[in-house]
Amino acid sequence: MAGSSHVYQAPRGTRDFLPDDMAVRLHIERAWRDAAVSHGFDEIEGPTFEHLELYTSKSGPGIVNELFSFKRSGGETDFALRPEFTPTLARMAAAMGRGLAVPTRWFSMPWHYRAERPQRGRLREFRQFNVDVIGDPSPAADAETIAVALAALGRLGLGPDDVQVRISHRAAVNRMLADLGIAEDRITDAQDLLDKRDRIEPDAFAAKAAELGLDADAVARLGALGGEAVPASTDPATLAEAWSVPADTLTELVALRSELEARGLLDFCRWDISIVRGLAYYTGCVWEIHEISGKERAIAGGGRYDTLVESFGGPSLPACGFGMGDVVLELVLRDRDLITGGADLLPRPDAFLVSMGEDTDAAVVPLLTRLRAAGLHARATDKSTRNLGKLLKDASRCRARFAVILGEELAQDTVVLKDLDSGDQTEVPLAELEARLGNG
Amino acid sequence: MAGSSHVYQAPRGTRDFLPDDMAVRLHIERAWRDAAVSHGFDEIEGPTFEHLELYTSKSGPGIVNELFSFKRSGGETDFALRPEFTPTLARMAAAMGRGLAVPTRWFSMPWHYRAERPQRGRLREFRQFNVDVIGDPSPAADAETIAVALAALGRLGLGPDDVQVRISHRAAVNRMLADLGIAEDRITDAQDLLDKRDRIEPDAFAAKAAELGLDADAVARLGALGGEAVPASTDPATLAEAWSVPADTLTELVALRSELEARGLLDFCRWDISIVRGLAYYTGCVWEIHEISGKERAIAGGGRYDTLVESFGGPSLPACGFGMGDVVLELVLRDRDLITGGADLLPRPDAFLVSMGEDTDAAVVPLLTRLRAAGLHARATDKSTRNLGKLLKDASRCRARFAVILGEELAQDTVVLKDLDSGDQTEVPLAELEARLGNG
Repeated sequence: MAGSSHVYQAPRGTRDFLPDDMAVRLHIERAWRDAAVSHGFDEIEGPTFEHLELYTSKSGPGIVNELFSFKRSGGETDFALRPEFTPTLARMAAAMGRGLAVPTRWFSMPWHYRAERPQRGRLREFRQFNVDVIGDPSPAADAETIAVALAALGRLGLGPDDVQVRISHRAAVNRMLADLGIAEDRITDAQDLLDKRDRIEPDAFAAKAAELGLDADAVARLGALGGEAVPASTDPATLAEAWSVPADTLTELVALRSELEARGLLDFCRWDISIVRGLAYYTGCVWEIHEISGKERAIAGGGRYDTLVESFGGPSLPACGFGMGDVVLELVLRDRDLITGGADLLPRPDAFLVSMGEDTDAAVVPLLTRLRAAGLHARATDKSTRNLGKLLKDASRCRARFAVILGEELAQDTVVLKDLDSGDQTEVPLAELEARLGNG
Repeated sequence: MAGSSHVYQAPRGTRDFLPDDMAVRLHIERAWRDAAVSHGFDEIEGPTFEHLELYTSKSGPGIVNELFSFKRSGGETDFALRPEFTPTLARMAAAMGRGLAVPTRWFSMPWHYRAERPQRGRLREFRQFNVDVIGDPSPAADAETIAVALAALGRLGLGPDDVQVRISHRAAVNRMLADLGIAEDRITDAQDLLDKRDRIEPDAFAAKAAELGLDADAVARLGALGGEAVPASTDPATLAEAWSVPADTLTELVALRSELEARGLLDFCRWDISIVRGLAYYTGCVWEIHEISGKERAIAGGGRYDTLVESFGGPSLPACGFGMGDVVLELVLRDRDLITGGADLLPRPDAFLVSMGEDTDAAVVPLLTRLRAAGLHARATDKSTRNLGKLLKDASRCRARFAVILGEELAQDTVVLKDLDSGDQTEVPLAELEARLGNG
């Protein structure tokens, strides 16, 4: 392969972030972090790769087939690039044991990796916002995580006309699967299949459903499971009837509805039994956020996983949370013109220095140094031209707030300050420059 | 290995970042980003893993031996976790070709991975600040990158009494190696060995030096190469004599000195021929930043790599830059008490809500929701106690600025606001709460 050009490209399914792309990503990450911090969540992070077994033991087939795994050459341990954050979080919580104050509210926004075929909304490397409450069994905790997800989307301009939270419950899903005749030890496989239903061919779906021991009639019923989502205002008795499940499987959803209402979020929410989630460890409520027309993959997905921390050797700690990737979210934001090129999101320089003659050139670097030491974002032209119009165009191109023009006034320790938004131009004593730029 | 406890720990040489640890990392990253942005650098990022050959072809033996490499199962391509950022940056610049505006100033602060034995200051996974200027052959570009490194350290509290920039030049190093009798095709290996000199046993050093074709006398001279660092104010003739190299190998260092002086950085700098850098692609100035007593590994290292972009199929573009890892930097900051536990670096809540009775409990969630929607960082007690002293202690523990006490005044749409820094306590109408908290 020596000299072949593919090595000079980013690996398939990964991305190079040039400054405009990076500005978009930082804009998204800022919304994530600000939403989580304002809701009282503390930021954490874990390793990019974990012991392979951390995933093979608990996450189920849906994720294990997509792992990038490797060994240290000569080493004995298998590692895997982190495909999701929850096992890391549960491992950290388990390691702290009784030392963990509960409830604990944690968030993280690291990279994740899935070795699957790249396609729209699905890359091999993506950034994911993870928000979790540990040690709180109440539906208030589920509602708090949903509130953070919606607050983050709100900061990016997405409201109830744009996105919808579709909420289900594993107890109801599993009851419906059992009623179809799925054996208890195949429930995890059936959940995984149901989760993939919209993404695989009907024939492949039917073949896999048959492997679960279903006859043709049951395969058809599995494929149609769920039907229409219903508004979160629907009364529980009606919902239980629509889903053909006993009312007691819906107790937590009823309590969750009150909590969502107290947070003013009911308009965003629908009950939707077709939401399953592919991960094996969920135990209660599961939910996804979708663009309202349903035209992209899920923007976020999460739920309750009350046994995972204990399964990693920790105390028995109920927990719930969600993940929100950057890839689908960015598609939705671009679809709705809430993000354009990205250049408008780059940090604006406070000052762009322009020297009009050879006698002022020597003043540029010391003045840049002075402004930067004051914490200001200062740039200077790298062109040799003395054409002020061209130089000011460069200043505008990087969206500088002010041009600082070093001309013959510099002999009197004065510069010309041009406000590039208003066009106003004034002479300013050098000594006052930081103050003038800082108040711009 | 099922059930073995090691899978419940972070892999060796990686870290779990609990909230206090994360606050320290974000403090460091904030200093990095603010320093780079204030100097007019644009943020970029690339993939966590690249095609293996991106590294094997250009970086030299020092880094290739430390790669975590892997294949997608069933795939044909070898990948490697990114051990350093420069090849990614050069690849991105090469891909843009003539479309890249020059000079371009880029920075990045991604994760890096080296499969070596973890030890003090050296982990298998670390965060690294990378700052580069592409398309500017002048020593001013080298000086700008050094200025960013020192500005970042300055923001963390490190000045010329704490850190030192040790500067060398590949032309001078290579001349000295050639004078010792190293063949031209072994120069890269000799650079790598010289770079490792302080980190390997004398016997191992001698054995490897002998492999380079050196006799015992030359091995001793190689081991002693460099001698004392000299102040950056030293005149070039004296420096050339001290290093036994022709004066013309120092032309760029002389120009660099002027640029460092214009930026007020000469006090930080020393000329030090023992600085080699282990990477094969450096072509000119090379430098490291060390804690002043030399007791830790390098805090940062960089230099000029004028042929790398072209070697990846891009235009001929001179470039220079550096990397600064988080691990040694954090050790230096802790040694000097510039970082303590980290809890003092966590974001402060604006408001901590306390409900004094059952009749006020229902107001907590709607008020939290309202404050958070206004962008405020609002928390509430998760305790069932009504003991105000205990509740205020919780508020102080998370360093909230204000406690918002919901008591019987709530019936008159009024709350008690307690400033937890000053201890002042006032009644505030609910409608004015955001304004009062926002101005705190």
